[in-house]
Amino acid sequence: MSFKTPSQYLEEMRNLKRTIYAYGEKVENYVDHPVIRPSINCVAKTYEAALTPEFESVMVAKSHVSDKKTSIFNITYQTKEDLIQRCRAQRLLPRLTGYCSYRCLGSTLLTALYDLTYEIDQKHNTEYHKRFVEHLKYIQDNDITVSKSMTDVKGDRSKHPSEQADPDLHVRIVEKRKDGIVIRGAKAHQSGAVASHEHIVVPTRTLLESEKDWAVVCAVPADAPGVVHIFQGGPEEAKIMMGDGGNQKYGTCSTSLLIFDDVFVPWERVFMCGEYELTGTYIFERYSPIHRIAGSACKGGVFDMLAGGAQALMEYNGIRRGVAHLRDKLVQLMSIGEICYGTGIASAVMAYKAPSGAMIPDPIMGNASKIFAADNIYEAARLTTDMAGGLIATIPSWKDYQNPETRKYMDKYLKGVPDIPVEHRMLLFKFLQTSISQSSMCPNVVLGAGTGEIGKIGYYHNVDMEPKKKFVQVVTGILGEEELDKKEYVKDLEY
Amino acid sequence: MSFKTPSQYLEEMRNLKRTIYAYGEKVENYVDHPVIRPSINCVAKTYEAALTPEFESVMVAKSHVSDKKTSIFNITYQTKEDLIQRCRAQRLLPRLTGYCSYRCLGSTLLTALYDLTYEIDQKHNTEYHKRFVEHLKYIQDNDITVSKSMTDVKGDRSKHPSEQADPDLHVRIVEKRKDGIVIRGAKAHQSGAVASHEHIVVPTRTLLESEKDWAVVCAVPADAPGVVHIFQGGPEEAKIMMGDGGNQKYGTCSTSLLIFDDVFVPWERVFMCGEYELTGTYIFERYSPIHRIAGSACKGGVFDMLAGGAQALMEYNGIRRGVAHLRDKLVQLMSIGEICYGTGIASAVMAYKAPSGAMIPDPIMGNASKIFAADNIYEAARLTTDMAGGLIATIPSWKDYQNPETRKYMDKYLKGVPDIPVEHRMLLFKFLQTSISQSSMCPNVVLGAGTGEIGKIGYYHNVDMEPKKKFVQVVTGILGEEELDKKEYVKDLEY
Amino acid sequence: MSFKTPSQYLEEMRNLKRTIYAYGEKVENYVDHPVIRPSINCVAKTYEAALTPEFESVMVAKSHVSDKKTSIFNITYQTKEDLIQRCRAQRLLPRLTGYCSYRCLGSTLLTALYDLTYEIDQKHNTEYHKRFVEHLKYIQDNDITVSKSMTDVKGDRSKHPSEQADPDLHVRIVEKRKDGIVIRGAKAHQSGAVASHEHIVVPTRTLLESEKDWAVVCAVPADAPGVVHIFQGGPEEAKIMMGDGGNQKYGTCSTSLLIFDDVFVPWERVFMCGEYELTGTYIFERYSPIHRIAGSACKGGVFDMLAGGAQALMEYNGIRRGVAHLRDKLVQLMSIGEICYGTGIASAVMAYKAPSGAMIPDPIMGNASKIFAADNIYEAARLTTDMAGGLIATIPSWKDYQNPETRKYMDKYLKGVPDIPVEHRMLLFKFLQTSISQSSMCPNVVLGAGTGEIGKIGYYHNVDMEPKKKFVQVVTGILGEEELDKKEYVKDLEY
Amino acid sequence: MSFKTPSQYLEEMRNLKRTIYAYGEKVENYVDHPVIRPSINCVAKTYEAALTPEFESVMVAKSHVSDKKTSIFNITYQTKEDLIQRCRAQRLLPRLTGYCSYRCLGSTLLTALYDLTYEIDQKHNTEYHKRFVEHLKYIQDNDITVSKSMTDVKGDRSKHPSEQADPDLHVRIVEKRKDGIVIRGAKAHQSGAVASHEHIVVPTRTLLESEKDWAVVCAVPADAPGVVHIFQGGPEEAKIMMGDGGNQKYGTCSTSLLIFDDVFVPWERVFMCGEYELTGTYIFERYSPIHRIAGSACKGGVFDMLAGGAQALMEYNGIRRGVAHLRDKLVQLMSIGEICYGTGIASAVMAYKAPSGAMIPDPIMGNASKIFAADNIYEAARLTTDMAGGLIATIPSWKDYQNPETRKYMDKYLKGVPDIPVEHRMLLFKFLQTSISQSSMCPNVVLGAGTGEIGKIGYYHNVDMEPKKKFVQVVTGILGEEELDKKEYVKDLEY
Repeated sequence: MSFKTPSQYLEEMRNLKRTIYAYGEKVENYVDHPVIRPSINCVAKTYEAALTPEFESVMVAKSHVSDKKTSIFNITYQTKEDLIQRCRAQRLLPRLTGYCSYRCLGSTLLTALYDLTYEIDQKHNTEYHKRFVEHLKYIQDNDITVSKSMTDVKGDRSKHPSEQADPDLHVRIVEKRKDGIVIRGAKAHQSGAVASHEHIVVPTRTLLESEKDWAVVCAVPADAPGVVHIFQGGPEEAKIMMGDGGNQKYGTCSTSLLIFDDVFVPWERVFMCGEYELTGTYIFERYSPIHRIAGSACKGGVFDMLAGGAQALMEYNGIRRGVAHLRDKLVQLMSIGEICYGTGIASAVMAYKAPSGAMIPDPIMGNASKIFAADNIYEAARLTTDMAGGLIATIPSWKDYQNPETRKYMDKYLKGVPDIPVEHRMLLFKFLQTSISQSSMCPNVVLGAGTGEIGKIGYYHNVDMEPKKKFVQVVTGILGEEELDKKEYVKDLEY
Repeated sequence: MSFKTPSQYLEEMRNLKRTIYAYGEKVENYVDHPVIRPSINCVAKTYEAALTPEFESVMVAKSHVSDKKTSIFNITYQTKEDLIQRCRAQRLLPRLTGYCSYRCLGSTLLTALYDLTYEIDQKHNTEYHKRFVEHLKYIQDNDITVSKSMTDVKGDRSKHPSEQADPDLHVRIVEKRKDGIVIRGAKAHQSGAVASHEHIVVPTRTLLESEKDWAVVCAVPADAPGVVHIFQGGPEEAKIMMGDGGNQKYGTCSTSLLIFDDVFVPWERVFMCGEYELTGTYIFERYSPIHRIAGSACKGGVFDMLAGGAQALMEYNGIRRGVAHLRDKLVQLMSIGEICYGTGIASAVMAYKAPSGAMIPDPIMGNASKIFAADNIYEAARLTTDMAGGLIATIPSWKDYQNPETRKYMDKYLKGVPDIPVEHRMLLFKFLQTSISQSSMCPNVVLGAGTGEIGKIGYYHNVDMEPKKKFVQVVTGILGEEELDKKEYVKDLEY
Repeated sequence: MSFKTPSQYLEEMRNLKRTIYAYGEKVENYVDHPVIRPSINCVAKTYEAALTPEFESVMVAKSHVSDKKTSIFNITYQTKEDLIQRCRAQRLLPRLTGYCSYRCLGSTLLTALYDLTYEIDQKHNTEYHKRFVEHLKYIQDNDITVSKSMTDVKGDRSKHPSEQADPDLHVRIVEKRKDGIVIRGAKAHQSGAVASHEHIVVPTRTLLESEKDWAVVCAVPADAPGVVHIFQGGPEEAKIMMGDGGNQKYGTCSTSLLIFDDVFVPWERVFMCGEYELTGTYIFERYSPIHRIAGSACKGGVFDMLAGGAQALMEYNGIRRGVAHLRDKLVQLMSIGEICYGTGIASAVMAYKAPSGAMIPDPIMGNASKIFAADNIYEAARLTTDMAGGLIATIPSWKDYQNPETRKYMDKYLKGVPDIPVEHRMLLFKFLQTSISQSSMCPNVVLGAGTGEIGKIGYYHNVDMEPKKKFVQVVTGILGEEELDKKEYVKDLEY
Repeated sequence: MSFKTPSQYLEEMRNLKRTIYAYGEKVENYVDHPVIRPSINCVAKTYEAALTPEFESVMVAKSHVSDKKTSIFNITYQTKEDLIQRCRAQRLLPRLTGYCSYRCLGSTLLTALYDLTYEIDQKHNTEYHKRFVEHLKYIQDNDITVSKSMTDVKGDRSKHPSEQADPDLHVRIVEKRKDGIVIRGAKAHQSGAVASHEHIVVPTRTLLESEKDWAVVCAVPADAPGVVHIFQGGPEEAKIMMGDGGNQKYGTCSTSLLIFDDVFVPWERVFMCGEYELTGTYIFERYSPIHRIAGSACKGGVFDMLAGGAQALMEYNGIRRGVAHLRDKLVQLMSIGEICYGTGIASAVMAYKAPSGAMIPDPIMGNASKIFAADNIYEAARLTTDMAGGLIATIPSWKDYQNPETRKYMDKYLKGVPDIPVEHRMLLFKFLQTSISQSSMCPNVVLGAGTGEIGKIGYYHNVDMEPKKKFVQVVTGILGEEELDKKEYVKDLEY
């Protein structure tokens, strides 16, 4: 077994020479930077969890390429059980940090690319799959954290990559050499990029034949020359910069504007180079269905924390257990999380085998889940705010609590029920403030893999309306019973 | 194998001497009565489906008490696969009839009583379980359709059964004899009662020690003396009475006010008699979690039909495939059905073993699903209406279409796209009219096992807030990590 | 004063020789036909209300063309007070009948045509306005009920009127004679057409230059030769046909498929004939803003009745006043009605003068109201059902209550609180059943002047985004303060 | 006319010796403090607007006590036109600042206290009204900004003020002297307190006879000894502290925990002292209906800015005008604002005279508006985020844009359509980020005068269900027509 300890991981991060800018400065010691460290702590927690005996059945799986015990985030999914386990891991981690694991996007990519490379090879007689499996073994053996580099900066939204005034507005190959390729461009909203060992670059949209230069998949080491981060923090990150965050240890929404400024990638790390044809299939039918279950299941954990925090705070506020409208809101809030998790599980149960043998979750169910989550995240913020009360918005600063002149007033006037220290009540108000603020602002939560609109597009792309129409036509007598093969009735119910 | 053909079932129904009143008259030939026959057709379809080879993996299971092939509706669930299969069957049947299977409630009861009788025996040293298993074998061997008699008429909602002005407002034991018991009372909204072979009476609420006389479970043959039905039809049923329904063959919401006018039940059909203690557990922790997955999964099928009908009708109306707001509504509609089905599946995957060995779906997930469905059924009606257009509400009568004087106008003016006969367009408008009308009126759909409020109560009854609170207290530092057993983090993620 | 008594109106209806078909038969005595009479009763109630002293300030206004007291439904609006009064009348009438007034559509048309004819004359030097004012005086002097004939049957939705396989799928001029014109076509969903004295035909959509033959506005007497009704009843109407309705006296949703089978109209009743240019303006900027306030305000009255019925029924069911989730639902339900009414009032307050001097309500506010109402009607159905309980869907037939064999059971088992007769409880369940059924089915309620989508189109058609953009650009410094005329800030706040 | 210029106001603020703590420090120059100054700028803008000729009809009214021109925020409302004007002012101001006016709460109080003091005098033969009118003239003559001090810190929510472990958890009178009273306690979430000239203290809840010491209304000068502010900033305020806000000039949500540490108030500034009886009436029937229209109408302006910003940003992103789902979201967003404004207007139109002659907006309509707004604010955040795209959450810091090393990348990769400077696109992303963050976090927006729950309580407190019940009972024949006075039908439609 090759599992890394949190401190080994931390050490490796310290050894990486990255170029990171934040708040107008070049960051020298990024590992200890107040808004970057929390994402590193979140990833460290995934390593700790994998070594925690009680969590082994959730965090540890078996690699089918090496037969060795491997992190659930680094295998490629071959069975429904693998996928269900992934859902469970996604729900567990927010319970440990109150926040994001930062492992979901890169992890999802491994299975998607496992299949994509296989399918490209089938079509083009290339050898990407073998190359990718080798790289996968390297990732597994070294217990590496991978981050996904997908969302291009896009420029003018009405134009294709090749039509932009600046061709670099989508990452592209600017040079092919004997030993590798050179890429240029930038990816936006790179969640947890600062906490990973490498970045896997993939296209963000369906490409045309004239856009082969943009059809590139490759793995870039975190410290490759030319990789530049500009940290993208929102309001909550400013609060953490000031030492006044509600989840100072884990709660930064860490994303980078990640620039590839003519970065060289050797051929053994290139897994697509010009084969534009499968980009749409890969995005809508491989990558996004897997990501859907991760993004759905983690909401279960995120909402467990909102509900747990709200329940604790109501008790601290002296609210009696039976107050009907609050019980109602608590149940509504928890239901949202439960439905996200449940539809993730169901998508796993209804998974199917892709050509490579990879197990792909049901995209219909996954996209239904995404649409639901996107509509309900703000509802969760509303419900939590209603339960917590006004101080969720206006709880004063820790710094005022450390100042004896103001602490005396806060100890007196921020008291809830007599037996709870004011400090505990403040901790909860601040934790929920952070959580709500990020529910409505953090791209990890709100925009993870796109808005609800993307879910609708994904749903419509994958659904077959014909059988549904015919069921009705048979019942109404427009079609005779014999005109519809009975297998059509149960095709999508097989599992 | 002892599977019944639809015609055998129909013959058995014809042979039952029932007392049924409808629209002011005693019904002589109930099997051919226009508003009763559709529910019998629905149940007949369940028999046909069990004999259809393509549906065998969905409709046929193995009984663990007899090891024989048995209808999925008549086994008691022992495995998660059993429960998932039940979900699949629930979604299949609406595709065949555009409506309700009428099998879900009675079917759910079998597993719930399998466990309840076991638990009563453990507590009271009684022999109900053995007696129930004998009766179960009888049901399985004779491929019988069971209906559940649960919802009492209740009288004054603010009072317990024993406090009502009339004690009969909840079904109760009025006499215990050597050979059996005599029961009196009435059950409301008895879906499909007219299409079943027997009625299993169960209490509708948690009972007090002083209410042992109301603590009764027993199986009453459909033609037992004293059993009286008053048919409870809504608006759509009136339309069907006039021969003008949108799903004349299957689409009646058939419910009875079912009166037990001093009905004798022999002891071998009595499965609880005074043991009031477990009524709450049975309702919230056994019966309702199983019913939740059935009620969730069938919505998948019901909404498949709304979506299929809407899609077909849009095409008949000449609406181009790409109209964005209609595509959006179609996807939203389908997502609702998908989420209902998916949370049903997830509830099955997360099931646990009850003391008797029965497999009970996860009640948290099931109730989350119920809350969601209750909130969204009307939304589905709205979306479907928007897609179909105004004639969904105002499509004229079939009788006018049969009248040559008016048919000429209808053939001219109700034409949509040129190649679709007006009759087909009318069939679809009428089918959707019925479906929508019943979405908002039919208790099978809207009120099946209670409103969303019941889902909230069930959720709150089953959920444990303590671990969730502690997750937050650990992350915020209010509790030390060591103060929470790590097993608490994954207890509810085991499956 | 020339106000008609209800019995004069009834007498006039009896004297009209109409051609009406319903349920496969030609209706001989339409005034006493069970599904037609209720709409006549509703209109009769508007005549009664105008003569009721307590309602005079709501129902009676002054005509500016004659200076005489006139029904609020027959004036053309010249002041904001007129429009506010109209809102009040719209809310009052559902309180008197539990249903629709059937006066709103025709009434709205009068002001819209008052202006449209004026504007056509300005553009084309025609004399329509004078002709229309003459006709208006006739309507006012004779206290006539007008119905609006707007929604064409439309055929293939993707095609313009002139592109349809059958040109008659939108009403058109087939002949121009010296003495008048001949029109042919059919209008769908003609609410209350059977209860009016005349039908005013108007186009349903923006027309092209090549579509002058479809650009026709004219007033057709109810008994003109060639006018044929096919009654379009939904589920609730079938119930009323059987004598089992929940609001047997008023509660039919009466709509006709209204066929103009080569109907002659003399020139003095023709108010547009080929002037296609203003059809879009008329629909989006004249007709629909006025209709919006009527349709909004009447929802206030409709929901007053749902709330009043639910409150009474909760009391009959024995539900204590304090039950939190029910109080919550009651308030939510009433809020919906209140917001509909309030936005109607606000649209009136913010009205502006059209070129003719007619007062046109603010279309932005009116369409916002429409969007809100369309989204919330089904929500109202859901809330009412939750408050009423299951018998709202399954209350048995009046015929069973008249049959002594079943009445004895119903008197015993449908009892709620002891002091309320079962008959009263049934009346309320049935009334709410009808109301809910029609909330989700009746085009008067759901589809009155189109779905929410129409509201969105109307909103977008009327709104000016430029000032809003500039407010932000000034605040963010993208524009200098001096680059935006300060009047832009308050232009839409003037009133 | 005595209108103050912005610079006079600023000068007065500079002259006030306040005790303010923020982020752990005592603030020396609060006027120039980065998170406090924006609220002062917002108030200064109200002074500027009053002097702007184009805004005079909106911002300037006539005082009925002095007959002089006065700020719309400082009169007591005597007519419906006054109230409508107030709505217009509330919508105008966010258009000028993108944020809150900070004038609404104090302003609302003036009319409420005008009436409350009148009613106390009637009951107790006191002279508070005269005293209050004197103080009102002082406020008007000096064009003063008043802030409202209402929400107590409350402690244990399940206990009354007199039952708390610490009696100071609600502000109370600790001493009555010959020359005045001494008060002690703290008020939470005091919006704009730092930008006002004085604080008017009022109770936050209905008080009991035993709680006369808590029944206190008085006006405290901003620099009275013992008044202490602890600044309560949320995430966005931290961003502004760092100079990285999206609306650095106006966009701080400025609230104080405002402590009254034994503050002396002379009798001429005391307007209630022990007369506990009218506290409930005052809160639910005087103060809150007036505040509702202000809080409703300002949402119109807030959402104008979200819509304007989103529209501009979509153009900068290159999104073509016709994209259906975005047009749909834009209209939905604007409708929310329009409905808030419209129901405010309607509440003003339906206002009634209180005993003192003050005009009180209709509380039913106002609370319906509040319920709607509370449910839809988060929806607005969701819609805006969907329209803007991901950079609304992750737009990098201004500091990185000022650093040439990173600016080169940002100028290249954050480009949208070619002709818009990156700086402008950043300004809009940041502005919307701030606006959305505060939509879900800022108490001015979300919690202004309480959550939606308060709206429901207020609605239920004010509504009379009896007439509504009777309308239904008459229509269903349960009551005879003669049993209901016809005036009941129109009582609430009078205006």
